[in-house]
Amino acid sequence: MISALFTDLYELNMAQAYCVERMADRAVFELAYRKLPDHRNYIVAAGLEDALRFLERFHFTMDELDWLREQRGFSDPFVSSLEDLRFTGDVYALPEGTPVFPNEPLLQVVAPIMEAQLVETALLNMLHFQSLALTKAERIVRAARGRQVVDFGSRRAPGGDAALSVARATYLAGGHGTSNVLAGRTWGMPIFGTMAHSYIQAHETEAGAFEAFASLFPETTLLVDTYDTLEGVRLVVDLKKRLGDRFRVSAVRLDSGDLVALAREARRMLDEAGLGSVTIFASSGLDEYHIAHLVETGAPIDAFGVGTKMAVSADAPELDMAYKLVEYAGKGRFKLSRGKTLYPGRKQIFRKILDSRMAGDTIGRFDESLPGAPLLRLSMLAGRIQPQPSLEESRHYIQQQMAQLPEELLSLEAAVRPYPVHFSENLKSDLESLRSRTCVLVP
Amino acid sequence: MISALFTDLYELNMAQAYCVERMADRAVFELAYRKLPDHRNYIVAAGLEDALRFLERFHFTMDELDWLREQRGFSDPFVSSLEDLRFTGDVYALPEGTPVFPNEPLLQVVAPIMEAQLVETALLNMLHFQSLALTKAERIVRAARGRQVVDFGSRRAPGGDAALSVARATYLAGGHGTSNVLAGRTWGMPIFGTMAHSYIQAHETEAGAFEAFASLFPETTLLVDTYDTLEGVRLVVDLKKRLGDRFRVSAVRLDSGDLVALAREARRMLDEAGLGSVTIFASSGLDEYHIAHLVETGAPIDAFGVGTKMAVSADAPELDMAYKLVEYAGKGRFKLSRGKTLYPGRKQIFRKILDSRMAGDTIGRFDESLPGAPLLRLSMLAGRIQPQPSLEESRHYIQQQMAQLPEELLSLEAAVRPYPVHFSENLKSDLESLRSRTCVLVP
Repeated sequence: MISALFTDLYELNMAQAYCVERMADRAVFELAYRKLPDHRNYIVAAGLEDALRFLERFHFTMDELDWLREQRGFSDPFVSSLEDLRFTGDVYALPEGTPVFPNEPLLQVVAPIMEAQLVETALLNMLHFQSLALTKAERIVRAARGRQVVDFGSRRAPGGDAALSVARATYLAGGHGTSNVLAGRTWGMPIFGTMAHSYIQAHETEAGAFEAFASLFPETTLLVDTYDTLEGVRLVVDLKKRLGDRFRVSAVRLDSGDLVALAREARRMLDEAGLGSVTIFASSGLDEYHIAHLVETGAPIDAFGVGTKMAVSADAPELDMAYKLVEYAGKGRFKLSRGKTLYPGRKQIFRKILDSRMAGDTIGRFDESLPGAPLLRLSMLAGRIQPQPSLEESRHYIQQQMAQLPEELLSLEAAVRPYPVHFSENLKSDLESLRSRTCVLVP
Repeated sequence: MISALFTDLYELNMAQAYCVERMADRAVFELAYRKLPDHRNYIVAAGLEDALRFLERFHFTMDELDWLREQRGFSDPFVSSLEDLRFTGDVYALPEGTPVFPNEPLLQVVAPIMEAQLVETALLNMLHFQSLALTKAERIVRAARGRQVVDFGSRRAPGGDAALSVARATYLAGGHGTSNVLAGRTWGMPIFGTMAHSYIQAHETEAGAFEAFASLFPETTLLVDTYDTLEGVRLVVDLKKRLGDRFRVSAVRLDSGDLVALAREARRMLDEAGLGSVTIFASSGLDEYHIAHLVETGAPIDAFGVGTKMAVSADAPELDMAYKLVEYAGKGRFKLSRGKTLYPGRKQIFRKILDSRMAGDTIGRFDESLPGAPLLRLSMLAGRIQPQPSLEESRHYIQQQMAQLPEELLSLEAAVRPYPVHFSENLKSDLESLRSRTCVLVP
């Protein structure tokens, strides 16, 4: 579990200030991103499960408080007040798997200001990367057009918890599973894996390695590119000849070279040897662009192992995501920082559906009645997690959500017309009225 | 601590195969990257501390083994053999902070093949991201030319582990510290933080917020861009007038807009008010390119808070890093996969220094005598960590290392001539001799 000390120092400074100033009123913070990265038409919300668990368990340990007392700037009464601090607020959020557009809150925290402030860093950390990872995984799975996608990214994911998040995201996105054993155990999802080059290399001959492995794992996938890919395929065909009916190898894996040409030739060789049931698994620096290309050229590849590019969301590794105060003590709060204007007040997103497709969103006041379905749902009440979907339910939900996206947003490149999102008239007038009452040089 | 189940399934499959085949000889695996990302002339090795700790504590818990027994494909005798499995091998590695070039091993594991195989995924996960993070942080700190750099990246780092790694990397690179309280506690490094926009917004007036915060934290930094940056600076000047000698605010922070113009005007206003000692702190999407530009234009900025771009290594989020078998049972092992040729045998890197600058590396056999200093050092002996440098020592070491880099590699863009790295004649002939004995269609 993430420690309550996983926070930026300023959160603790501000918490002490709120404490001293007796500012204990209810605050509303909203977490949203400001603009889409290149190559993205939407972001798929994720990270809520971890965020809610973090909030429910949020507390400082005695050991942490003892350490805090020794730090400069913190008074004893303040640190003591942290002893019993728990997160007691409400959270409204988009279910994981919901497409979300710029300026739309993915998550809304309604809590005494000190509590809401202290959890900022951890909440952003979880939602930011997990949303990027799910968005990337969804693109990759979609590009594969029904072919299996397996997460191979753990070795190059940015850290251990990122590896686990990426495995989960792959499965949520409709992928087949992961190579990571711990992730498979943690979420009860399918785990895949065969052999590495080292296994082949450690044997005196490639043929010997294939035979030994297939005798232990009869339905295995054999990695054929250690020395020469097509020579490797020929050895698989030889193995069939030697084993006869005992041959049950299910696939060959290509991990280097020109995958289109090699897959075609491998397919031809396998088919010619009566091995039509042996499938072709490809890996090697794949992402949605490569996969879309392989699928379009008709390369006879049945499944993809996807690693690094997915694990780091290579073409969009960051999102301008922030957690902002929009209401305190019942009053709307705003910001005018250049390029980062913030609309005041607690919000709701209303999404219109026409002919089973999303047709535009309006961001309005939380209590407005506007056309469309409200998207932010109560996820935590008074510090208690409300019933959440299972992994399988979320996996199903994201499929439904993707089917409702306008066709033009499903391109791997930026759509000509972005999805329409507007602020409601009430919100606009709330901003104007606050702006006009603020005595500053507004551009 | 990272679980031993944090591994790719194929490692366990191969482990069982090695077990069944009675392959228990000593293997040598080397961890290296194949090519430099764009905009990089070197990678700074990192992640060793975590890797060694992982290896020293490596074991499967009873609970994990019970779970493994239930999984398809694993035999009882194999799972039972994992009960007492510990990492008993030796590790040779580059000290954290050493510049490393393509194909040079950062880490070399010498251990019974099963042990060496099972730790692959975790070792790569740690060294890959941490090396990218330290490389990025070093560029950012260097671009700041002596101005302070503080890590603000935790909220957008790709996961909790990554946030802590980035904080540590920033400090190792010569940065001033981090905003992350847990990171500061974990490594005993300086922690920085002031106030967020939310604190200003929660107050009825910006002036009131400044005054309240400064009374609690007299030497604080005031964030001035919530509504209008220069108006915010004017309020700081007003505060000085009101507080007189009690005014001890140390800095203002700019977090949006045209930082060059705003810093100049803020500096002018502060100086005019006799506040020459109040420094200017800038943040807002900064990276080494922005910072170099700000420094070159002479913007009067004294310190930088750097977040997202550093935390995700935005312009180089991945590295083609792999962990490869090069020796088993005393024999060199190699690979000919297209574009991924692997030289056989255990290696050493020999680095020549001329006139206090690195003048070229030779990758040779481990036991060769070649000009230059051998770089791979014994870091773990028979499963025990050998004395390692402290954080401060590593921080000092990286400075020394950077001072030895050839001038042309210190550009933020790719150098015209890459750093010279050659394989020794012996290694070349080892590859040729293995290649000629391998009966495959070699291009």
